[in-house]
Amino acid sequence: MPSIPDDIRQRATRIKLACFDVDGTLTDGQLYFDADGRESKAFHVLDGQGLVLLRRCGIQVALITARDSKVAEARGRELGARVFIGAKDKLAQVQALCAELDIALDQVAFMGDDLPDMAALRAVGLGVAPANAHHWVGSRVHWQTQAKGGQGAARELCDLLLDAQGHVDALLAEWGA
Amino acid sequence: MPSIPDDIRQRATRIKLACFDVDGTLTDGQLYFDADGRESKAFHVLDGQGLVLLRRCGIQVALITARDSKVAEARGRELGARVFIGAKDKLAQVQALCAELDIALDQVAFMGDDLPDMAALRAVGLGVAPANAHHWVGSRVHWQTQAKGGQGAARELCDLLLDAQGHVDALLAEWGA
Amino acid sequence: MPSIPDDIRQRATRIKLACFDVDGTLTDGQLYFDADGRESKAFHVLDGQGLVLLRRCGIQVALITARDSKVAEARGRELGARVFIGAKDKLAQVQALCAELDIALDQVAFMGDDLPDMAALRAVGLGVAPANAHHWVGSRVHWQTQAKGGQGAARELCDLLLDAQGHVDALLAEWGA
Amino acid sequence: MPSIPDDIRQRATRIKLACFDVDGTLTDGQLYFDADGRESKAFHVLDGQGLVLLRRCGIQVALITARDSKVAEARGRELGARVFIGAKDKLAQVQALCAELDIALDQVAFMGDDLPDMAALRAVGLGVAPANAHHWVGSRVHWQTQAKGGQGAARELCDLLLDAQGHVDALLAEWGA
Repeated sequence: MPSIPDDIRQRATRIKLACFDVDGTLTDGQLYFDADGRESKAFHVLDGQGLVLLRRCGIQVALITARDSKVAEARGRELGARVFIGAKDKLAQVQALCAELDIALDQVAFMGDDLPDMAALRAVGLGVAPANAHHWVGSRVHWQTQAKGGQGAARELCDLLLDAQGHVDALLAEWGA
Repeated sequence: MPSIPDDIRQRATRIKLACFDVDGTLTDGQLYFDADGRESKAFHVLDGQGLVLLRRCGIQVALITARDSKVAEARGRELGARVFIGAKDKLAQVQALCAELDIALDQVAFMGDDLPDMAALRAVGLGVAPANAHHWVGSRVHWQTQAKGGQGAARELCDLLLDAQGHVDALLAEWGA
Repeated sequence: MPSIPDDIRQRATRIKLACFDVDGTLTDGQLYFDADGRESKAFHVLDGQGLVLLRRCGIQVALITARDSKVAEARGRELGARVFIGAKDKLAQVQALCAELDIALDQVAFMGDDLPDMAALRAVGLGVAPANAHHWVGSRVHWQTQAKGGQGAARELCDLLLDAQGHVDALLAEWGA
Repeated sequence: MPSIPDDIRQRATRIKLACFDVDGTLTDGQLYFDADGRESKAFHVLDGQGLVLLRRCGIQVALITARDSKVAEARGRELGARVFIGAKDKLAQVQALCAELDIALDQVAFMGDDLPDMAALRAVGLGVAPANAHHWVGSRVHWQTQAKGGQGAARELCDLLLDAQGHVDALLAEWGA
């Protein structure tokens, strides 16, 4: 695992809710359209495994997208995550979740790659962008992953949270490493 | 943002209409076909956001493709752009748009990657090619982006136009940066 | 072909069954979903050719995936491989195959990229990961390919097995090289 | 354009028929399958343009694939190319085409990436492989492109043929360069 600055690890120890933008973050940003205008997108199996591990270790997971995307809803449901589609104000959605879960913004990680993620990224305890985020966003977050969106970027954040909160050795043992 | 030569920035200040080829420019050039010959293609969420920002800042946006592509039409409509499919003579289409909008070719940016884009690219005020354009085209445009088609190339042009026309600070403030 | 350490080649000489995880190993890890939640994935033609060559040279081939994936089933059937979907315990599946084929774990190669593959990878005679496997896995296998999953990683393992067992010259001659 | 060795250019001057394998040559090798086992694949717009230019300059174009692929048939038809699917013996298919067109094998270019292309590649006047062909093939052809299959490799061959046969200046002039 790449070396993580101490203050980022410190922030990661406090996280109880991890929120992910979808397009460009859980995907590589490509929106596939067919001739009828029907949309598809590609999620990565490494990221999905990471989200499942987070939940098993007691960290809540939410997908928050501004697009009205049934695809995101289907994938999120499969992973057991909360999914909020058509969320024009992502920070408001994060704040509503904090109220519901009775946690502070300081205990939230948010991962996103473009302007609509900016306010949430700047408000939470750990704002993260994938390697190929727009530079307006990449230059304003706490941490940027080495992997690109949809290519394991989300898994890098999951690994950081699992590591900072001391779950890795138990997971590896459980899976026969 | 990569440093932009002064004359390119100068050209960018005048643009009132930004035209984009589709395949290889707004996509990575891949044409997906299924067993029934039905076509799909992948657009990038970063590019889409850029086109939306252009329109909000008063720059008109048009998609111009020689293919008879319903996919391009659907995506363009979603982004609020004008879409011209089956346009065999792209320069003629640009000229018709200039007449309708009462602007000069000097105020048009065109982005394309291959021979069918050549005449339009050489006639407008700012001819731009994505990083992976055919070398016949890449060597004859005013500016070539660092990103490849369908991977943020169009967004780079959008960013240049927004920056040259002084809109970036207001956009960042509006989005909570 | 990249140079192969002697002990890896030694392990390869004994293999009679080659097992492959699907997502991230025979694919690049991308799970495509459409608006109805229907899943697609992409296999690589080089890998498929490798699996067919293995079988022609007397090495059994099995696909073993934890996902309940009809796509994997269809592709495996086309290649004449045994396919096990919804296999939550992959090592148990490998062991059952060993019993059926009357071979030892020492004669099995397994290729996988993430936690659910770990136990099988550590138990068999030749545990292999694609270049872009999760680092938890990549650091615990006998050998890691130069190619990424879904981009020829499986073919690299096939080539190693064919080469170590002395089939390459005959294959090349048969195909007119 | 990358510099071309003299003997390759010499071979290119004689070509009257250009044959292309499909998977891994006109595509990046990815075979997309949905849950019903239906296959899709992605062709590149740059390659398609190249094939159209070849035909306009009097060079015949054929797609020859061992797969029973309706997708290849649909794409080939759109480009006005001859298409032969389910061709288990590609060299025999090339020879039949030579007889029909009354040309010699010396006047044929063939592009392919794996074992099933080997015999044809070794028999024709100009055998070409994409950058990411299997090394068994890449090491036995006359020329290997810089681009990968499905990413412009076929276009590189088209450009070579057009250039060696003196068509480039006229094409550029016609398209307004």
